[in-house]
Amino acid sequence: MMNTEAAVSAYWTALEARDWDTLAGLLADDVVYHMPQTRERIVGRESFLRFNQEYPGDWHLAVTRAVASGRHAATWITCAYRGEQLPATSFFDLDDAGLVREITEFWPAAYEPPPGREHLAERY
Amino acid sequence: MMNTEAAVSAYWTALEARDWDTLAGLLADDVVYHMPQTRERIVGRESFLRFNQEYPGDWHLAVTRAVASGRHAATWITCAYRGEQLPATSFFDLDDAGLVREITEFWPAAYEPPPGREHLAERY
Repeated sequence: MMNTEAAVSAYWTALEARDWDTLAGLLADDVVYHMPQTRERIVGRESFLRFNQEYPGDWHLAVTRAVASGRHAATWITCAYRGEQLPATSFFDLDDAGLVREITEFWPAAYEPPPGREHLAERY
Repeated sequence: MMNTEAAVSAYWTALEARDWDTLAGLLADDVVYHMPQTRERIVGRESFLRFNQEYPGDWHLAVTRAVASGRHAATWITCAYRGEQLPATSFFDLDDAGLVREITEFWPAAYEPPPGREHLAERY
């Protein structure tokens, strides 16, 4: 059984490689993928694999940061998609067998800062 | 010196309590707060405290999930703000003294899901 950090690293490597067999082997049968921004939830390994297989457009994922402890992990990835570099943040729960059981994922979009804090913040 | 999980928990407790002295004591002098969505960066403890002190409106923060390992941590908080429950995800780096040295924070907004995945996703 892999430790949590290795399991989450393998998850992103398999997803980037479209290595669906390896990815399936990392997921619990009843994995649940939560997207709080759209209030969508995908339940079950087969549906989750199809969601990724059917996702339109070309995309490439790289892990920017990962933190794992016990059966919990969080990652910040950078997704190259349609000419943009998009961040995503994901929180993972693994089950006792070390399989990914819950994923909650956020895709924070860019926006212009509100006025009134230019004296404190620099742009980059 | 607190461990990383305790330091990050204390950070959110102090921020929610507007306990600026305690918060200041958890931050490195040269703390950097990154907001990748707006490409803003706030450098230094005094500016970071002022940013929070001056933030308009009432807000209340609660930690939904936290993961820490070594000098790194990630949290998912829920912010009650103007009648909404807003998620934020934050990645922390602490320095060797256990002080918060870097924070990268995302505020993912709600949006409507794109069409084409209704056969896989349920709404909640």
